[in-house]
Parts: sequence; C-alpha cells; structure tokens
Amino acid sequence: MEFQDVVRQRYAAKKFDGKSIPQEKMDELIELIRLTPSGLNLQPWKIKIVTDQKTKDELFPVTGEQPSVTSCSHLLVLCANTDFDDLVAKADKSMRDGGVPDEIRRHVIELASAHKEKSLEARLAYARNQVFISLGNALNGAKALGLDACPMTNFQPQEYSRILNIPAHIVPTVLVAVGYAADKPMPKRRLANEDIVF
Amino acid sequence: MEFQDVVRQRYAAKKFDGKSIPQEKMDELIELIRLTPSGLNLQPWKIKIVTDQKTKDELFPVTGEQPSVTSCSHLLVLCANTDFDDLVAKADKSMRDGGVPDEIRRHVIELASAHKEKSLEARLAYARNQVFISLGNALNGAKALGLDACPMTNFQPQEYSRILNIPAHIVPTVLVAVGYAADKPMPKRRLANEDIVF
Repeated sequence: MEFQDVVRQRYAAKKFDGKSIPQEKMDELIELIRLTPSGLNLQPWKIKIVTDQKTKDELFPVTGEQPSVTSCSHLLVLCANTDFDDLVAKADKSMRDGGVPDEIRRHVIELASAHKEKSLEARLAYARNQVFISLGNALNGAKALGLDACPMTNFQPQEYSRILNIPAHIVPTVLVAVGYAADKPMPKRRLANEDIVF
Repeated sequence: MEFQDVVRQRYAAKKFDGKSIPQEKMDELIELIRLTPSGLNLQPWKIKIVTDQKTKDELFPVTGEQPSVTSCSHLLVLCANTDFDDLVAKADKSMRDGGVPDEIRRHVIELASAHKEKSLEARLAYARNQVFISLGNALNGAKALGLDACPMTNFQPQEYSRILNIPAHIVPTVLVAVGYAADKPMPKRRLANEDIVF
C-alpha cells in the first residue's frame, strides 16, 4: 500500500470486531516498529504485547474504559527504556560489529553517553520522544498491513506497570490497540496549512 | 511506494547534493506531515521552512556544524506549539464545523482543556511528544516522494528562535533537512526483536 494512501486512510479505530490477528502479520508489524529511526540510533523503547482477554479486562478500568482495549486483538504497550547504560553499550557493540568507522562511532558514543549522566526525568523525556516516532510506524504500519489501530495516552501508567509487572526503568508511554475495526472513519479534520506553516 | 519499502529504504542522509526540491513536491510533503495524528487531534505543532542559503549558513554553527543543514534543499524546523488556548478553541470549532456529535465533542474538549491548566513545562513535554509523531511522517514521507531526509536534535533551540525570530510559545524541537542525498545508506542496524519485545 502506497505510503500516501496509508496516511490518508488510517484513523483511530474506536472499536474492534474481536477477531485475532495472525501471528505472522503481527511479526510484520513489530518489524516495522523495530525499524523506526531514533536519535543516535539508541532505540530507547520496549514493547509489551497483551493478547490475553483477562489481562485486557483488568486494564480496561485504568484506560478510561476505552472499548478498544478489550475489543482489540493485540494491545501494544509502547514503553520508554531509560537504561541508557545498556542502550549505549548495545549501540557501541552494534557499530563495532557493523564496521562503522571508529571516528564516527566514537563521536556517536560521546553524544550518547551524555544521556547517561542526565537525571531520570531528562532520560525519560528523551526516550518518550523517541517512542512517539515508533508510534507513527505502528499506526501507519498497521494500516499498510490491512489492520486498524487506535493510539491511547489516556491511561494510568503506574497501574499498567503493576498489572503487567513492568520493571521501574521501563515506563509505559503510549498504547496502540490493533485489530480489525468495527467502526468507520470520520472525515479527517486537520488544521489548515496556514495554521501550521509560519 | 509501499510503506514497507519506505521504512526499509529511508535513512538519515548526512549530505545532500544542493539541488532544489520543486515546490509541488514540498507541498506534498507538508501535506503528509499535516495529516499526522495527534493526541485528541490537537496538532500542537508548527513548521518553519528555511530555504535561504544565508540563513542556513547562519544556522550551521548552532547545529553542531552538520553539513546536512547547509547542503539540503529545505530545512524544516518542527516546533512544539504550547498555546493550548488557541489549539483547544480551534479543535472545538473544527468539531462543531465537522458535525462531531456534541457528547463526543464535549468529552474531547474536557480532556483537552486539562492541558490549558498545566505548567508551560508540562504543555511543552506533551506538545514535543506529538511533534515526534509528525517527524515520522516527515521522514517516511520524504522517502515516499523520492526525497531524502535527515533528522537532527543536536542543535541550539534558543539560537534557532533568535535567528528565525520565533515567538516564545513556539519551541523548536527537531529539524528535518530534506533534499537529494549525496551519500549512500549504511546497512540498517537495529536492536534484536528480543531486545525490545519483553
């Protein structure tokens, strides 16, 4: 599917038909998310995938009772990973293994290492920004694969961490319910060009 | 171009050949960015487009001397818009004009209005997250249109505001240099699936 059509046709499905997405389709979607670009290629994200109905039911009240949580096939919990020690070590290894010239590798690691010294709050803010790039690939990717998706930020992250047993350094940031829509898109409403280009 | 191919083929071009992008092509790219989804559809972003070589040269030293700034055709400065009074008013009008049912409109405006009461810091963090969704459409959109792009966060936002005369409530967040690449992509390096899905 052409990217321009993906962008025009995707919408936030508010309700799904309950049908399960085949595993190989989900693998393709996760692959599109995995390929998302990020600052210094640090990829400070983690994904928890919820398919179990009992867990979805438990998450429903801490997600503003949004019906997409319980009716979707897969609920992706996109999380920020604040463990920059590990991320920088992995980036260094990946560049060594990938034959990136030493000069470039050292420069990237120098910039990346600055994050390690920052406060948890600053690391989290940085990682969260990157997670939102991956959100775009998740939403566009779902549509490109013939699926529908609904992004949600109206949820209680601490309750998610408790219910899903997520360690403290991984912070639930945005949800993507994925499945087959049981509703129809409304016409897209966007600010006019002159409202955003200045 | 298929979305999956876009995702696989796009890369951060570090140098451009200096050729200008035709205006109609840029219009298409801006349209793909404009259609980006956002939380509560508030679209808290603004775009400053820099094409003038003198201005690009002036921005070069406050962008870590990255050659993509001076060699690109168009430099997009994606900014966070923290004026939620205006954004919420526009969202309300758009929903009224678009015939969105009153119950839904009121619920959305209630959620959106909560942002108006928040600190500038909190509004900025929220808006910045949304800008990063639009970044994804900018990068994928450029590739889909046969262009190349380079995202950059290593720049001095206050110097950008000064040089480009950007008002205080609009905060430069991430840059996208767009043009025709004069370099070749390296093989994509990403964390393994098991490093991100947990």
